[in-house]
Amino acid sequence: MVRIAYLGPEGTFTEAALLQLAAAGMVPDHGPATVRRVPSESTPAALDAVRDGVVDYACVPIENSIEGPVVPTLDSLAMGSPLQVFAETTLDVAFSIVVKPGRTVADVRTVAAFPMAAAQVRHWLATHLPVAELRPANSNADAAQQVADGQVDAAVSSALAAHHCGLTALADGVVDEPNARTRFLLVGPPGPPPPRTGADRTSVVLRIHNTPGALVAALSEFGIRGIDLTRIESRPTRTELGAYMFFLDCVGHIDDDAVAEALKALHRRCADVRYLGSWPTGVLAGAQPPPCDEAARWLARLREGKPDPAGGTAQ
Amino acid sequence: MVRIAYLGPEGTFTEAALLQLAAAGMVPDHGPATVRRVPSESTPAALDAVRDGVVDYACVPIENSIEGPVVPTLDSLAMGSPLQVFAETTLDVAFSIVVKPGRTVADVRTVAAFPMAAAQVRHWLATHLPVAELRPANSNADAAQQVADGQVDAAVSSALAAHHCGLTALADGVVDEPNARTRFLLVGPPGPPPPRTGADRTSVVLRIHNTPGALVAALSEFGIRGIDLTRIESRPTRTELGAYMFFLDCVGHIDDDAVAEALKALHRRCADVRYLGSWPTGVLAGAQPPPCDEAARWLARLREGKPDPAGGTAQ
Amino acid sequence: MVRIAYLGPEGTFTEAALLQLAAAGMVPDHGPATVRRVPSESTPAALDAVRDGVVDYACVPIENSIEGPVVPTLDSLAMGSPLQVFAETTLDVAFSIVVKPGRTVADVRTVAAFPMAAAQVRHWLATHLPVAELRPANSNADAAQQVADGQVDAAVSSALAAHHCGLTALADGVVDEPNARTRFLLVGPPGPPPPRTGADRTSVVLRIHNTPGALVAALSEFGIRGIDLTRIESRPTRTELGAYMFFLDCVGHIDDDAVAEALKALHRRCADVRYLGSWPTGVLAGAQPPPCDEAARWLARLREGKPDPAGGTAQ
Amino acid sequence: MVRIAYLGPEGTFTEAALLQLAAAGMVPDHGPATVRRVPSESTPAALDAVRDGVVDYACVPIENSIEGPVVPTLDSLAMGSPLQVFAETTLDVAFSIVVKPGRTVADVRTVAAFPMAAAQVRHWLATHLPVAELRPANSNADAAQQVADGQVDAAVSSALAAHHCGLTALADGVVDEPNARTRFLLVGPPGPPPPRTGADRTSVVLRIHNTPGALVAALSEFGIRGIDLTRIESRPTRTELGAYMFFLDCVGHIDDDAVAEALKALHRRCADVRYLGSWPTGVLAGAQPPPCDEAARWLARLREGKPDPAGGTAQ
Repeated sequence: MVRIAYLGPEGTFTEAALLQLAAAGMVPDHGPATVRRVPSESTPAALDAVRDGVVDYACVPIENSIEGPVVPTLDSLAMGSPLQVFAETTLDVAFSIVVKPGRTVADVRTVAAFPMAAAQVRHWLATHLPVAELRPANSNADAAQQVADGQVDAAVSSALAAHHCGLTALADGVVDEPNARTRFLLVGPPGPPPPRTGADRTSVVLRIHNTPGALVAALSEFGIRGIDLTRIESRPTRTELGAYMFFLDCVGHIDDDAVAEALKALHRRCADVRYLGSWPTGVLAGAQPPPCDEAARWLARLREGKPDPAGGTAQ
Repeated sequence: MVRIAYLGPEGTFTEAALLQLAAAGMVPDHGPATVRRVPSESTPAALDAVRDGVVDYACVPIENSIEGPVVPTLDSLAMGSPLQVFAETTLDVAFSIVVKPGRTVADVRTVAAFPMAAAQVRHWLATHLPVAELRPANSNADAAQQVADGQVDAAVSSALAAHHCGLTALADGVVDEPNARTRFLLVGPPGPPPPRTGADRTSVVLRIHNTPGALVAALSEFGIRGIDLTRIESRPTRTELGAYMFFLDCVGHIDDDAVAEALKALHRRCADVRYLGSWPTGVLAGAQPPPCDEAARWLARLREGKPDPAGGTAQ
Repeated sequence: MVRIAYLGPEGTFTEAALLQLAAAGMVPDHGPATVRRVPSESTPAALDAVRDGVVDYACVPIENSIEGPVVPTLDSLAMGSPLQVFAETTLDVAFSIVVKPGRTVADVRTVAAFPMAAAQVRHWLATHLPVAELRPANSNADAAQQVADGQVDAAVSSALAAHHCGLTALADGVVDEPNARTRFLLVGPPGPPPPRTGADRTSVVLRIHNTPGALVAALSEFGIRGIDLTRIESRPTRTELGAYMFFLDCVGHIDDDAVAEALKALHRRCADVRYLGSWPTGVLAGAQPPPCDEAARWLARLREGKPDPAGGTAQ
Repeated sequence: MVRIAYLGPEGTFTEAALLQLAAAGMVPDHGPATVRRVPSESTPAALDAVRDGVVDYACVPIENSIEGPVVPTLDSLAMGSPLQVFAETTLDVAFSIVVKPGRTVADVRTVAAFPMAAAQVRHWLATHLPVAELRPANSNADAAQQVADGQVDAAVSSALAAHHCGLTALADGVVDEPNARTRFLLVGPPGPPPPRTGADRTSVVLRIHNTPGALVAALSEFGIRGIDLTRIESRPTRTELGAYMFFLDCVGHIDDDAVAEALKALHRRCADVRYLGSWPTGVLAGAQPPPCDEAARWLARLREGKPDPAGGTAQ
């Protein structure tokens, strides 16, 4: 039995992501049957449950193609005691507009929505419920609960949450922007990374000495080794305005030589490097790091004093 | 008379920032007496009021030392029709916990707060109002209004808003983290930048071709010229997960030769460069770009065929 | 009448290069008819004759595809008072093996050769004159003179020198390596560079502060601006073993914006920059520097506060 | 017994360098008593004797602080079958002006000199023997032999050569430039490099793909890893004018992690890398490469899933 915390209550997109991870066999050493889902009141609380040993993993959203980074996740990963990422999955974003059974659009005067959800269905609401008043909710599931409790007439929520609360959908698959997607991570206590698959992601948090050019120099450690840097996020360090830490994602695994070299170089160069893990992405997120086998064999031959039989001769 | 939109209602920190900008004479061509403040329902709405010609400028928050970037400001600046920044100011963050006159801590069962404000007084609330229930509000001023309307017992708000609503403060200067500050921009329609002062900031939004190393190459355009890059923010382009645009701030003015050269280089290199302006920061935000006068004179002498009288001889 | 010094005596390859420059109209403001050739005893002496005002220009070899740089030329250009390059030309290398009229291979026991020439006909001599003894000469023309004086039986020389001395050739067009070529420069006192042609070369001598990475940083000033660096030569500074100065050639003209920016950046960065000139190469020696007109116009519009009508909008 | 070829005849500076290497115990596995010196007619011939197995090592000059690189050494190391450097030593340059016993300055009408030697005593000759005619010689020892044979009156040579030929010195320690020094290498067949001493030099020859920026990118492989690049020499590839190969020296040993990483990166990046060896320099030639032990330990802990006990936490 493996316990996995997620942003609850039941019915959130995060729970759906967790079910998807479990079904795909991406929870290390566990199949779907042995996963026990533990709702948590917030993303930081889910991560703290891992830190406290209350659960084995947490499933948390990390970024959304419309809203960008999920800041509480970033800040908890960077600021609390070290955690590590072991898997990821991506969900298409699509909301259900839910009401009590029997209600119609004409009955809706108030709509509850988690602010991030409200931002993604703004155009739909303006078109279909132009006069309804928008009320804040703490999550998509909380919005549905507000409908069930009679506090509001409708909610921007998920099909899963509607089902939990006995509600029906006025509309499903609602989202303003096509291709809206959210990426979720499976986070656990530090441990050996899952084996290299050839389609992996490695992530670090850097704190950089405050000298001109230091950020570019740190980023160059990736490019100079042919490593594809796929994401950079800055977050304030909370010490003063204008001081930042940087979240970097690259294609590759700590067991790719190029990535290992880049990590060592960052460790020497930066004020602090926090390793967030290397994990499989299923499909490649960019260009693979260059293979090092041939160069490593060449170096081994040099050390033995056996130069290249054919090549290596500058002729 | 100059009309300036801000995130209302009356009493927000943004209004305080606007008052500070006007008092300091930082509204181009206008003194404090001629400024007319126009409350707006949101930051994007304030910026759109500039685009529509309804106001002359908007005052909007851009980043906070605890919460990081103000995402709606970034996205509106990058996505809507071009605007330009003309001034900035910074406010210390400090909240007032406000109630109806005569009420005390013992009377507080519910507290309204704008989520960003709630995040910055979490520890204070846990210590002083451990059992009070937190209710969401749309702004600091809205939270105060909820107290005035009798919907909640207390609000996390500002002294200015409390004054507007006839409330009193249980506590002033409340904030969990010392040194919490918010930076605000004065944004107008595109126009000639204010003159170079020697302590200036230049800001751009880049869209970069999706090739490995392209971001580092773009950032290097600053470092190679001795320009201090003080901030980098990435935001999703909203087209697909994993595609970003980058907000860069550097020390210097478009009339600093090094900055002008870097801008031209970015224009050649990037898919798109949006110039957000060059404006005075009052105090230097980092290392000044290298002066170019001497090198420019040297180059002019070479073109005339008059080598250095003393130096320039490699002896 | 323009006086041009060259490595004499009459009949050297350098004189042939000078004739070629004059015939092609590449001597500034002078046609072939008005050129007066002044033989000089060495390459540095020819350059010093320019410095002393005895001649208007000097024609000197700068590099050979087999032997590499012509060191006395490099050192004189870097160490003496400033000179400037105004034109260049390239000659195929091919020697004549010359004897007194009536002599044959069977008569040759001694062969005089300038060492650089000897190095380029080594295989030919080993094949055709395997037992002949090699004697040093001070130039190709001196080698021919030694034959005329009866000191040696044969000389590695040029057809022009053989003609001057009344000798005949055992073989013409002799050279071990195909594609052997020598490049020659026309050097004068500092003056306005010849106009940009679109196929130009710019050359500098750098002295670099002795810190790790300083050379790479200086070279990066070219690459970052898309300038093609076509040649780098290091020479000792003569102060201590391990201290060098660097000769760099790039494609482009001081009136190409990118080249002008790179020169200014080097002037700021390096201990010393000596500009050797910008001059036409006839055919492009590599990739042309990027044109700057479009970026410069964009920058000008930004300064006037007129953003791009169509583009420039990050949408 | 170890056989070592050198540029002969007896009495050259190269022989003196070889004696110095042997006396210092720098010939691998051999003391001075077991070294047999084998004179060779040229530097390439000495290196070819190693290639042919006729000798075990060759001692050859590689660079001089006044004249720069010794081109035949560079070209043979780069072009022939692979060889490897095992040791180096440096000699102060100082010539003896030698005559037959009993002769004085007044008797000298002709002076023989190896051209490289003549270049370094030019001022001395102009001052002390202003009217003597300079005659070319094939080596310093050959110059002395010409005196012994009665062909010339004096020679620019070495004390060792004068002793061999029974000559006396008009002057010792003659050299125009103070601090003139020559560096010599001990070259053998490829084999395991001598152990890392902490004060080592590593040398490679690169052939680089002909794309703009390729040289800078290759050089950056050193700088980005904190490796001090102490020397760069370009030499024509002999295929066409304007195509070069590059000789690079850096501080460090193939067993320094940073150097090993740089070598692997060059192997991936360049058209060809020829490793010339890693060998002790006695004193450090520049800044040592950064130690990697701490970073390597950190990486090993990450792979085991054991984050830093104290540090590594971005707090």
